[in-house]
Amino acid sequence: MPVNLTAPDPAQLAPVAGVTLGIAEAGIRKANRKDLVVVSLDEGAAVAGVFTTNRFCAAPVQICRQHLATHAGSVRAILVNTGNANAGTGADGLARARRSCEALAAQLGIQPEQVLPFSTGVIMETLPVDRIEAGLPAALANRSPSNWARAAEGIMTTDTLPKAASRTVAIGGREVHVTGISKGAGMIKPNMATMLGFVATDAVIDPALLQPLVKAAADASFNRITIDGDTSTNDSFVLIATGKAGHAPIQSLTSPEGLALQQAVFEVSRQLAQAIVRDGEGATKFIAVQVDGGRNEDECRQVAYAIAHSPLVKTAFFASDPNLGRILAAVGYAGIADLDQGLIDLFLDDVHVAREGGRHPAYREEDGQRVMKQSEITVRVDLHRGPATSTVWTCDLSHDYVSINADYRS
Amino acid sequence: MPVNLTAPDPAQLAPVAGVTLGIAEAGIRKANRKDLVVVSLDEGAAVAGVFTTNRFCAAPVQICRQHLATHAGSVRAILVNTGNANAGTGADGLARARRSCEALAAQLGIQPEQVLPFSTGVIMETLPVDRIEAGLPAALANRSPSNWARAAEGIMTTDTLPKAASRTVAIGGREVHVTGISKGAGMIKPNMATMLGFVATDAVIDPALLQPLVKAAADASFNRITIDGDTSTNDSFVLIATGKAGHAPIQSLTSPEGLALQQAVFEVSRQLAQAIVRDGEGATKFIAVQVDGGRNEDECRQVAYAIAHSPLVKTAFFASDPNLGRILAAVGYAGIADLDQGLIDLFLDDVHVAREGGRHPAYREEDGQRVMKQSEITVRVDLHRGPATSTVWTCDLSHDYVSINADYRS
Repeated sequence: MPVNLTAPDPAQLAPVAGVTLGIAEAGIRKANRKDLVVVSLDEGAAVAGVFTTNRFCAAPVQICRQHLATHAGSVRAILVNTGNANAGTGADGLARARRSCEALAAQLGIQPEQVLPFSTGVIMETLPVDRIEAGLPAALANRSPSNWARAAEGIMTTDTLPKAASRTVAIGGREVHVTGISKGAGMIKPNMATMLGFVATDAVIDPALLQPLVKAAADASFNRITIDGDTSTNDSFVLIATGKAGHAPIQSLTSPEGLALQQAVFEVSRQLAQAIVRDGEGATKFIAVQVDGGRNEDECRQVAYAIAHSPLVKTAFFASDPNLGRILAAVGYAGIADLDQGLIDLFLDDVHVAREGGRHPAYREEDGQRVMKQSEITVRVDLHRGPATSTVWTCDLSHDYVSINADYRS
Repeated sequence: MPVNLTAPDPAQLAPVAGVTLGIAEAGIRKANRKDLVVVSLDEGAAVAGVFTTNRFCAAPVQICRQHLATHAGSVRAILVNTGNANAGTGADGLARARRSCEALAAQLGIQPEQVLPFSTGVIMETLPVDRIEAGLPAALANRSPSNWARAAEGIMTTDTLPKAASRTVAIGGREVHVTGISKGAGMIKPNMATMLGFVATDAVIDPALLQPLVKAAADASFNRITIDGDTSTNDSFVLIATGKAGHAPIQSLTSPEGLALQQAVFEVSRQLAQAIVRDGEGATKFIAVQVDGGRNEDECRQVAYAIAHSPLVKTAFFASDPNLGRILAAVGYAGIADLDQGLIDLFLDDVHVAREGGRHPAYREEDGQRVMKQSEITVRVDLHRGPATSTVWTCDLSHDYVSINADYRS
């Protein structure tokens, strides 16, 4: 059951001028499932992306990087399939990813390098590229600017709900739209970006600013979530700017216009990233882990991830059992060699659980229990060794996580 | 259900001259459970130990380190309680651990510094030292050299079976005995040693050799296992040499006598460490992860642990589902920045699953399935970038792991 997450209302997702989306059922792994999405971009759109740091990165990730290196300013289409990750597939996988780009390019009258391919699903299985080819005409015929909600459905795997978010901001006297979709439910500990995330805006922006913007947005959103600590082979997060909004071009991310756009992109990205955690495999709770008082942000994040990855901490949250010493244990093994346990504070929402490394004298188990029973919880650790802070979002570990991942392929 | 593990046969556990063990029910957390163990050592025994690297190390771990620093050659007693870890307890926890040493020292007419205290159980709860004191007379009265199997029971927490191992070797014309016990079932990713392990020998050995021997034994055994990746606050592994066997003292670990003892200690340690994995919380499979072809042992172990910690890999083993791309994904995110996926081989026992980073053309799913259904499985990855190798032992992730850890305190 997703945690405080509902399916997006299509009426709340602003179309982005210059972007149309088409969805089809191609039978890639299972019949009668939307598993193919084509996103067409008008000429003039610029695209930037960040991708997994997994060394076993999928064939489509490798192709995306190549195409973006030479054609970031002239990408015209995005092709997404679910049901097959086309990862761990060697040279044959690369050839099949290229063939899918060629097929779509031929239909659209563009170059294959103007297509960005994305795959998600089972690893180390052969991509049925013939089924993708056969599904393309239906997806292309289906294209519409108002298909964001259906496209969010078309990229789902073990997700139980589609994920989309949208913001409209005023820039240079014009309405600018930022709309995006994401998917992901397991193998989620993005390290650059998430499983799949696509955000588009009609803002007019110097293309050179897109890459720093997508990197910053990923760092503030997808790179702060974890479900199971498994960094996927296919993580990809793409930002599209179509330049159709009609305002004067944004030349700096720190100008008032740049900041307004940045905020909208961050908000959409964070909502999409948190939606992935809320719909994490088997999730029953949404947990923010905030670590304060570190010497730098890296060590705060390191401690936050140790807590967020601990199976013992995650099962305690599932059980609403305030067995909170497990959190201290995770802080202790997070890898900070000179950490002084005698300085550590631990809070659960407003409840002060541990002080100076030991149980707070006023802490009562029923107060911990009260917070543990909530569906949204903030764990806050203060290291008291510096000014830095970092927050990571995660979920609990339940029986359903095991069931889902023991059954995923069946 | 433990994997190919049975309770030790007391008749197979050789007594170690100079060591007696007593067990009592002290009601530390629950009534009617053996939860207190006292091990007495004759004068002349030498002791060495390795302890957790967790920065939130428990009060007894801190006290053990202090006592060993000054009294390694004159330790006369070991005191173990279960039901309470005395970790995350601050200054009060240290005072209580000291008080328990004082109480036992008073009964034995020795100094408190000649006692090594060990605790295991729930973190961040106050140690009921009065109950330990009250239980001591019964434990002392109960002491016997043939109590190893009962002592193994007395240190259990969520373990389903006691764990003990024994070897007898000939050194210098004499029979030398090596006998040990261990416990641990969750919060198991030792980093120096395991939850609790005690090995004793009557070998006569230069006390200066004990510390390198216990470190080497830990590195070859307890430091190679993981159940859930959670490094405990209380990991302790202790080696005792009573010097009662009557042969000429061992002056070097590389002499024939030193090597014979080393082999016996390694075998006992490895059997105890593997027993912990076989009895891992919810374990249904015992999995050896062997990584060959690394540039050095560290990177091999890093890749092996990434596989052994992946919840997705572990749930696939639970389901006997050869969803083996998940193993490649774990190899890819293990953190080797210049890893070339195009070189990687993957084997499941004798089955060649992946070659040059992609599915082996001859690999058939039914072959993978056949191996996955076994209760003992070897995963072998060849990185093809160097001569090093390392093996880690782990278990699968089942529904029972979640149940056990959601219910642990209730």
